[in-house]
Amino acid sequence: MAKVITPRQEDYSQWYNDLVYRSGLADQSAVRGCMVIKPHGYALWENMQAILDKMFKDTGHVNAYFPLFVPKSLFEAEEKNAEGFAKECAVVTHYRLKTDPNNKSKLIVDPEAKLEEELIVRPTSEAIIWNTYRDWIKSYRDLPILINQWANVVRWEMRTRPFLRTTEFLWQEGHTAHSTENEAIEEALKMHEVYTRFAEDYMAMPVIKGAKTANERFAGAVDTFTIEAMMQDGKALQAGTSHYLGQNFAKAFNVKFLSDQNREEFVYATSWGVSTRLIGALVMCHSDDDGLILPPRLAPIQVVIVPIPKPSEQIDQVAKTLMDQLKSQNIRVNYDQDEKNRPGFKFAEHELKGVPIRIGIGARDLEQGLVEVARRDTKEKIQIPVDKLSTEIPLMLEKIQINLFDRAKNFRDQKTHFVDDRKSFEEIINGPGGFVYAHWDGSSETENAIKESTKATIRCIPLDAPEEDGQCIWTGVKSKKRVLFARAY
Amino acid sequence: MAKVITPRQEDYSQWYNDLVYRSGLADQSAVRGCMVIKPHGYALWENMQAILDKMFKDTGHVNAYFPLFVPKSLFEAEEKNAEGFAKECAVVTHYRLKTDPNNKSKLIVDPEAKLEEELIVRPTSEAIIWNTYRDWIKSYRDLPILINQWANVVRWEMRTRPFLRTTEFLWQEGHTAHSTENEAIEEALKMHEVYTRFAEDYMAMPVIKGAKTANERFAGAVDTFTIEAMMQDGKALQAGTSHYLGQNFAKAFNVKFLSDQNREEFVYATSWGVSTRLIGALVMCHSDDDGLILPPRLAPIQVVIVPIPKPSEQIDQVAKTLMDQLKSQNIRVNYDQDEKNRPGFKFAEHELKGVPIRIGIGARDLEQGLVEVARRDTKEKIQIPVDKLSTEIPLMLEKIQINLFDRAKNFRDQKTHFVDDRKSFEEIINGPGGFVYAHWDGSSETENAIKESTKATIRCIPLDAPEEDGQCIWTGVKSKKRVLFARAY
Repeated sequence: MAKVITPRQEDYSQWYNDLVYRSGLADQSAVRGCMVIKPHGYALWENMQAILDKMFKDTGHVNAYFPLFVPKSLFEAEEKNAEGFAKECAVVTHYRLKTDPNNKSKLIVDPEAKLEEELIVRPTSEAIIWNTYRDWIKSYRDLPILINQWANVVRWEMRTRPFLRTTEFLWQEGHTAHSTENEAIEEALKMHEVYTRFAEDYMAMPVIKGAKTANERFAGAVDTFTIEAMMQDGKALQAGTSHYLGQNFAKAFNVKFLSDQNREEFVYATSWGVSTRLIGALVMCHSDDDGLILPPRLAPIQVVIVPIPKPSEQIDQVAKTLMDQLKSQNIRVNYDQDEKNRPGFKFAEHELKGVPIRIGIGARDLEQGLVEVARRDTKEKIQIPVDKLSTEIPLMLEKIQINLFDRAKNFRDQKTHFVDDRKSFEEIINGPGGFVYAHWDGSSETENAIKESTKATIRCIPLDAPEEDGQCIWTGVKSKKRVLFARAY
Repeated sequence: MAKVITPRQEDYSQWYNDLVYRSGLADQSAVRGCMVIKPHGYALWENMQAILDKMFKDTGHVNAYFPLFVPKSLFEAEEKNAEGFAKECAVVTHYRLKTDPNNKSKLIVDPEAKLEEELIVRPTSEAIIWNTYRDWIKSYRDLPILINQWANVVRWEMRTRPFLRTTEFLWQEGHTAHSTENEAIEEALKMHEVYTRFAEDYMAMPVIKGAKTANERFAGAVDTFTIEAMMQDGKALQAGTSHYLGQNFAKAFNVKFLSDQNREEFVYATSWGVSTRLIGALVMCHSDDDGLILPPRLAPIQVVIVPIPKPSEQIDQVAKTLMDQLKSQNIRVNYDQDEKNRPGFKFAEHELKGVPIRIGIGARDLEQGLVEVARRDTKEKIQIPVDKLSTEIPLMLEKIQINLFDRAKNFRDQKTHFVDDRKSFEEIINGPGGFVYAHWDGSSETENAIKESTKATIRCIPLDAPEEDGQCIWTGVKSKKRVLFARAY
């Protein structure tokens, strides 16, 4: 039997943890705040990586790899960036262990192997990368540099949750260098759009595109562009960010180039990243009390075939032919031949793991040339003639993909509010939750006061919000544009 | 003009470093012993990864990801493994920085943020993985576990060289768990064979398969299987290892399972890995004084088209058609349209970077329907009719792949010696170098004495060496089998 998952209604947070651990996405580890990404979770990440990597390459980027460690003196060079990450840094201070003289079976840190300069385990790689770019950039002919890195990073978080916030996580970080401000801003916006397309077209997760306020910007950025998604509890989740860094890092690391006008100038920069956090977003956006619901374009297994009640020569033959037909269309299909478990157990397991389509093949249905096809997203079951499967299954996968997006978008729209006064704002934020578009006076003080009072933050200043006259819900000061508020992960 | 590379004859070691840096494979970094893998080097690694990953999946493995950090108490659990790596461990002792009270622009380690238990940056992941497997394995039904991980690891090396020996490196590490000794040994040998196929069929690098002596085994292994390649200076390079770990880690981490006989038993283990070191091996196996020579199956760009002397409408048209023809055959082809540089400069650059085939298209040749095709491996140049290119180029790529393997194998065979006495042994090892097959008495003492005296080590006990009567070249003690000696990287 499938293991029990706490229902969402009862405890959303517990539902999430149960689901992540029981569906085989991740496991806890012996290291505080670090998780083990199990094969099912990693397969999902590999699919995400493959698609993103292709999108990056199609937009002209190449991959490279920079060191895990950042010497402290480099780390502190860009002041705001250093300040932003200093409180959550894992620091390497020694490079050797030795046998404990008091206990031969134990090891202790060798005090004689203390590093002259401490090494920071990268929380992000701007410092080490811009220190390297200095040697690579002499003239405008060396620009742009369009590099991405797939890597692990470490941020010492006090409260952690699998995928959403872990001490170590996997991500990609793009770091580009440009000769003009315009080109750099264009790059930051281009990658913002790449993330939007990935979230909506592959994760089936609608997002709001916008810019962060000064308070919420990446440490060291001039502008941070974000995509914000709504989870099923109405809270927002920041799913990806793209930063225009101006000349901040170029100045901190003295990276200049000779322009085509023969003038020495500082280089303009961007950085952009998404992480394994996207897996948490995916889980919280679509799944239900029976388990994961994965969008077909990312699901490690898209179709599972279950023999009913167990494999037989006849069923195996039908399954094999079907597998060949689907595989030839690049559909990821599996035949669950395990004889130890009954169909009911298997159904629950595949639902738990989020396989989009389950095909049950039984002798009785086969007599009429039929099989039973079950959709994970709607739980709908229909009978389909065997000879129609190779055309119907690909269409159904597309339908599921679209349905997941539409469902998530409808849910978000229903939980999105436009409010014009503090009372209504508080009623929604403290009550049902969701996204709230409201006017704000533009000051960090007000933003902080709202956060303190309601735990809601400004998720973004939406890029496509129309200009309109309004008044800040908190201070009454005039405003020209609504911003997006929500409580967030 | 291409930058100057020290010739191999003059200084082999300097040639290697020049080549790695100047061909754009890697760069030095601000972190002691760590390198930056530049886009050209990383593209090579991506190609290696894609092929290996497929080979692993085709043999039933899945990927997962385990934490970067290993708590010290876990690290020391398997005694031999801990002892083997204790001297080269980066140790995290603190999790926060703070502003230096004496200098506001500097950061210092916050003494109040000292970890209760130090964290070791993984030098290899057996400890953290076997500590996790304990929770995953209850019964024989949970076995085998066939997991691989792509990751970075850190070993604090005193003398480092790009790719060959770096403090941080990228690798894959497989960690499998089995219910019987036989099955585990079979797995270790299977992956040993996978590495052999990869080295020979993709890297075009012939290898000797064998087992390591007790002295040279992985710390914690019962048996280490290795593939050993010869570099152009006659030295050996260990290119991949696969370990049968017996029940050592299962015992250290108390990982037991209930067998199908209902008995509680310790689990049997293997681990196996190859790393970015393979890039160093590839460079040293095939390249020459003009630059890299890359085997077509791994080369990031397999064919480069150069317009002579520069792009024109006619040449662009021919190039475009050719590109389409080659791309449709999955050939990685590039058209060098850069107008800033002349053909001579481009030729040298593409030679430096190791592009297997260069096609020069010039107006004069085109009048006769011909283009010039240059092979990187032999420097041969021939004229080929334009309409034959789409069939000739794929064949030529195959020929280059085979030629590189044959050339490396001939070189190795010429530098491989069978000797039966100490004097001849020393003459070869201290003289021209190369591989030496010789009898050895089987003792670690003798092995150490030979190493001390000649710097030659036993690279392996070859798996396919015939039994024959002989005498140890050092002690005269009787021996049944020759082992492979060489100086090594």
